[in-house]
This record gives sequence, structure tokens and C-alpha cells, in this order.
Amino acid sequence: MKAYLITIGDEILIGQTVNTNVSFIGEKLTEIDVQVIKSTVIADDHNIIIDEFKEAFSKADVIIVTGGLGPTHDDVTKKCISEFFNSELVMNESILNDVKELFIKRGREITKINEEQALIPKIAKAIRNPNGTAPGIYIEKEGKVFVALPGVPFEMQYMLEENVIPALSELNSVKVETSKTLNLLTTGIPESFLYQRLGDIDELLNGSRLAFLPNQFGVKMRITSKGKTEEEASNKLLEIEQKIRSLVGRYVYGKNNDSLEEVIAKLLVDRGLKLSVAESCTGGLISNRLTNIPGSSAFFERGLITYSNGAKVEHLNVSEDAIAEFGAVSLQVAQQMAEGIRAVSGTDLGLAVTGIMGPGGGSADKPIGLVYIGVCDNSVVTAKEFKFGDNRLLNKDRTSQAALEMLRRFLLGIPND
Amino acid sequence: MKAYLITIGDEILIGQTVNTNVSFIGEKLTEIDVQVIKSTVIADDHNIIIDEFKEAFSKADVIIVTGGLGPTHDDVTKKCISEFFNSELVMNESILNDVKELFIKRGREITKINEEQALIPKIAKAIRNPNGTAPGIYIEKEGKVFVALPGVPFEMQYMLEENVIPALSELNSVKVETSKTLNLLTTGIPESFLYQRLGDIDELLNGSRLAFLPNQFGVKMRITSKGKTEEEASNKLLEIEQKIRSLVGRYVYGKNNDSLEEVIAKLLVDRGLKLSVAESCTGGLISNRLTNIPGSSAFFERGLITYSNGAKVEHLNVSEDAIAEFGAVSLQVAQQMAEGIRAVSGTDLGLAVTGIMGPGGGSADKPIGLVYIGVCDNSVVTAKEFKFGDNRLLNKDRTSQAALEMLRRFLLGIPND
Repeated sequence: MKAYLITIGDEILIGQTVNTNVSFIGEKLTEIDVQVIKSTVIADDHNIIIDEFKEAFSKADVIIVTGGLGPTHDDVTKKCISEFFNSELVMNESILNDVKELFIKRGREITKINEEQALIPKIAKAIRNPNGTAPGIYIEKEGKVFVALPGVPFEMQYMLEENVIPALSELNSVKVETSKTLNLLTTGIPESFLYQRLGDIDELLNGSRLAFLPNQFGVKMRITSKGKTEEEASNKLLEIEQKIRSLVGRYVYGKNNDSLEEVIAKLLVDRGLKLSVAESCTGGLISNRLTNIPGSSAFFERGLITYSNGAKVEHLNVSEDAIAEFGAVSLQVAQQMAEGIRAVSGTDLGLAVTGIMGPGGGSADKPIGLVYIGVCDNSVVTAKEFKFGDNRLLNKDRTSQAALEMLRRFLLGIPND
Repeated sequence: MKAYLITIGDEILIGQTVNTNVSFIGEKLTEIDVQVIKSTVIADDHNIIIDEFKEAFSKADVIIVTGGLGPTHDDVTKKCISEFFNSELVMNESILNDVKELFIKRGREITKINEEQALIPKIAKAIRNPNGTAPGIYIEKEGKVFVALPGVPFEMQYMLEENVIPALSELNSVKVETSKTLNLLTTGIPESFLYQRLGDIDELLNGSRLAFLPNQFGVKMRITSKGKTEEEASNKLLEIEQKIRSLVGRYVYGKNNDSLEEVIAKLLVDRGLKLSVAESCTGGLISNRLTNIPGSSAFFERGLITYSNGAKVEHLNVSEDAIAEFGAVSLQVAQQMAEGIRAVSGTDLGLAVTGIMGPGGGSADKPIGLVYIGVCDNSVVTAKEFKFGDNRLLNKDRTSQAALEMLRRFLLGIPND
């Protein structure tokens, strides 16, 4: 089955909203072997929407539309669907009940425009939306499936996973060839070096595909293998994975949807270790990433964002002499911060960062992008210098990633190069 | 001028990468009155790419392509451009020098595949890329502009802003009608309530356009007005802005690209106030958002992520009795945390949050999504209960937003409803 995704909304075209919906939908469809062949973004405009529906119907078996189903005047999708399928809008009593109940639960009075959200084209099945007031629309016609979902991400996500994916999965159950994908996640090595260390790519891949996807957190290697059965495809993938790991394994921190923070969380929980974090320049980003992991209180004890020098001295027992002699951004202070946070919180491990993120605060001696990271346990403390770029937010991302990677290597005994 | 954006990359279609590039490009083009009419994502496939180039040329004056310009085998864009324009690839010596210098700066040996990145279609001007090795491609032909840029966001962004936008801006300088856009950013009120409080929308807008864009941080209202001159359009916008503010102004924390943390940073810096933050459930997110603001050390003194009860008692002097009697997630503890962080850091203001983000830790009495936020200065402490949803990351986002909004209202003397 081939899918065509249509996002409706001027706010995406003019760049005011990042389109996270299509990546979510693309991922879920790929998991059930539905191939996304194209994804388009178009304006909230009646004629453009109708034309795009026609184009999508000519190219794909599954059309998924998001956006333009809200309660206000600028949401035109439902009218276009009604017209395109030549099917009048009728009140769906079950959806109307859902909407009413949601308002009761929130302790608010229902409005007429919210009631009208329960109008659905006669030809369609309604998809319930427990997180909002706009229902989804599901239509099967001429062997094709047309789905419209609201554009609010968490509403759309729930409806897609609970309703649309199971329905498509059943329709798509007859397959001739299957393909499987594996992502190997690396950090701390540039794309071209990774590529070179892999040697002869065609020999390595032997008909499978490999893509390199770099960003500020590292380079993702996506491998895709095909086979007559799932097992055949999986075996090919496994063989390539093993070859790649033998060549560049030290840089591979995880696979598929792993995040570095999840990998670390698992390492810590498995070993029963607790971590505390002292951050200066990252301002809480490292702790935020670690506490995004459900159940983080099992391994994360506390994090102190000692932004000022005073806070470093008071909370972490960093010596005023070290700050005076080497500066707050120095190898020595990073080490003392790591030791200090571990001591004050009584955890097994301490992780600390200090640096200059820009745009201000740089000097000839200590330029913007200079970072020191320290990590310690009860017997070893290690610290390392990094040089990143000029962009504050990218520097925060890179520093947090480098700190978590240093901790991963510390835990696994992989030397930091 | 009308623009058509093409993103090349399987990784976007299968949902492994969120396409932030098109929103960045859309925003920059909108600023110079170039209208994005469509944005598409297609696979790294020769025939599909050529077909899409044809389609784009038939619809738009400006075609901007991102992705597929990297050094590895899976990057096919440049070959397609060379074929589409029937223009052979030639070595660009100036770009080759740039690439060589970048490698010297990084202290790494240049590779052959990196040198090949300096090959450019003869018809094109090269766009320099100081942040990476893939140059951009700029072609003017038959009154149309074709641009190809690498897909790595920070590389693309720099090249777009420094080279492409100035060039297009000059080409687009003859205009008949101008349109201007204003975003009013609200939080703490649902979309349908906002809509209702605005009354008769057509009367309010008088020909201008208004879109409601909700997400977990609040609802953005985008107003677009047209006029024969910039001044005429601006005056229409201003009139509508004033009417909207008179109706729902208390919920409006900023406009356009303001973030709530920027608004707060400005309020604090203007008044010479310092803030410290005590976070439990948000795990550093609030401090991270505040320290994303350049120069944040002027108003942000420290942040303590007192995840464990012990840390709350040790660092913030929260009373063990209060934790035992009311629980760590309670109005009383939120108040004590706010007062504690202010006292320990000697700042003018203290902000504190405690709550249950899920998926674990909820009970009948204290369900997932329950949050208490406290804020204080030297004379007043106030705390408030919030009830959010079931999703951990959305709960963190919403809690951080509610906390910053409580602080904003505290600073401005707007009651929290």
C-alpha cells in the first residue's frame, strides 16, 4: 500500500509551525509496511484542497489529511471532504455526546461551534477524539482509504495509533516482499569519517541500503534490507549491523528510537546506580533530558544549575582559588563540580559541565563554544575539553550530548578519544 | 513571487526526521513577501526528483530544494540538478579551498569524497557553506530561481539567510499589494473560549484574516491584513490587535516570535530583578528555557532540581513535617519551595514547581497531571493548583508554560484565574 500525506494549514507554509505530524504518521505507516510516497503541505483554501485530494487519489491507496478540522472559521477541511465525496454533513450523536462530556469534565459550558464539530459526512465513519473536540473522518471508497485527522499533535497521535493504524494494518496484511529498517545512532564522529571507516560500502551492504543522517546530536545510519520473509530481511540487517559495529562500534550509542538519555537510564538502573548533575552553561538541559525518561527518580537524585560563581562555591564546594586561578570555565572547575555534586548528593556518580555558549562571554583566551565536562565516581574523576561553535542553542544541544556520551563511555569503560 | 519548496529525503517520509527546514524557509520567505504555495517531501530517487522539479517549475517562480547534497552515496540531488538543467558538473576552486580550510581548522585529513563536494553544475553559482562541506547551488533561468541547499539545518539556515534571502528580496522588490502578519500569543485559555470572547469575528476583522493555532503551550492567533502600502496594512493590523487586546488581553503574553521566557527575561532585566528556580517534576525544563535566552546570567541566578525529598529539605529548607502531612506534591510544599529557593539564593523572586508527570506515581488522591506552582518575592507568596493530562512530556511542557505564565502575571499584577 502506498500512502500520500496532506497537511492543510497556512501556518505550516509560512513557517510558523513545524510539521511534526507527518514524521509521526510516516513512522507509524512505515512500521506496518505502508510506504509513504509523498507528503505535501497546502494552504487552507477550498480549490487547492480539492485539487490536492484529486492528485492524491490518483497516486496512492491511502490518503491521510491533517489539519483544518478545528472549531473556528478558518478550518475548511470538513466542507471540502463533504464536497469531494459528494456526501452531506450529518450530526453524529455519539460524537456529540463525547464533546458534551469533555466539556462537563473540564467544568466549562459547551458552545454552539463545539456542537457543530460532531457533524460528519454521511459516507464516513467518525473517529473518536478523547483529547479534543474535533472527531476524525474515515472513508473507504473504491478500494482506497481516506482519513482526516485534527492537526493538534497529541489529538492526532492518539487517533492514528488507536484507530487508523489498526484498520490499515488489517487491510495491508497481504504482502509479497517485506522490508525492514534499522537505525544505528552514533555521536562524536563526523559523517565523512564514519563513511570512510566503513570501507567499501557496496560490499558491506550487498544490496541493502544505507543512509547517513547527521544533526547536532550525531549521525544516524539508517539501514534498510528487503526479503521474502521478515526473517530473511532481519537476518540481512543483523549481518550488516554486526559488520558496522565491528568497524565503528565505539561511536554507536543506541539504535532505532533510542535516545542517549534512555541508554544511560538503562545502564544506571540495571546497575542500581544513582546520578547527580551539576550544570552551568547548559542551564538544566542535561537534567531535563534525563528526567524526560519515565521513572527517572530511580536513577536521578538531583541536579544543581549553579549558574553563578557563588552557587558553584556554596553548593558544590568549588574552591574560590580555582575559579580565580583557572576561571569558572576550566578543566579544574569541571572536575571540582563533578566531585562536588557527587559529594553533596551522596550519589554513585557525578556529572558536570561548564562552558561558554555565546553570543556573549567569549574572549581570545576562552572563545565561545569552549566547554569542559567532568564525570566521576567514588574512585575516578575525569574531565575533557570540547570546542563547539557560535550558536547558543546548538552549543547547548552539543554540550548536553557530549556530556551524556562521556558518561556512557565512563560507565562502559570506553576511552574518550 | 510564488515559491515551491521541495525536501528530498526518505528519512522525512518515513518519519525519522522532523522537517524543521521548511518552516524556517517558509518564515524567511514570508518576511520578504514571497508566498509559499506548496511544500512537498519526496524520496531520494532520481526519477521522482526530476518529475518534482518539472512540477515545481510549472507552478512557481522560486524553487528551493533541501537535502541530498551530502558526501555519501545516498545523496543524489546534485546529479539530478545537473541532468535537469543539462549542465555538467565542474570543480569550483573557491569552494574546494573552503572545504580544505574547514578540514585544516578541525585538524582532520581531507578525504576524496569531501573534495568532490566542490563539484557544481556549470550553469550555477555556488553558495558558500562555512558550517559544512556541501556548498549550495543557485540558478537563475527563464526568469525563475532554483536553489538547492544541504539538509543539515544549521548549515542550510546560514546559507539561506546570508545568500538566498538577499538575492530573492532584490528580485521581489516590485510589488503591487503588500500583506502583513501579526501573531498574538496566548496561554491559559482554550481555543473555543478565545474564539467566543472575540464576539463577531467578521466585524472584528473587516476583511483581514485570523487563524487560531493551538498547541500544548497555548493558542497563537495569526492576523493577516493587506494594503496598497505597508503603512495601510500595518494600520489595519494595529486596529485589530487593539480590539483583540481589549477583549482577551490578559491571556496575551507576547507577539510574533516572542517566547514566554523572552518576555519574562525582558521584564526581569528591565526591572533589575534576579530569579531563582526550584524544580521537581519539570526536571530542569524551566531553567533550561530561561537559560536559552542570551545573557540569561543577568537575571537567572541558579536553579535547583530537587528531585528527591532529601534534596528539597537540604537545599530549600522545606519542612519534613509538611512533606509528611501534605505530601511532596502539595500547595504547601510548592509555597515552601518557592520561599526556600529565594532565601537560599538571595534573589528577588523565587519560582517553584512540584507535581506528578506520569506514567507512574499517580494515585486516586493525587492523580497524574496534578501540579502545584509557587511564586514569591520578598513580601508575597502565592501558589496554585493545576490539572494537566496523562502524557509525561506534554505535562512537562504545560507545567513549564504555566509556571512561567504565573510568574509573568505575578510581575505584572494580573490576577491568576
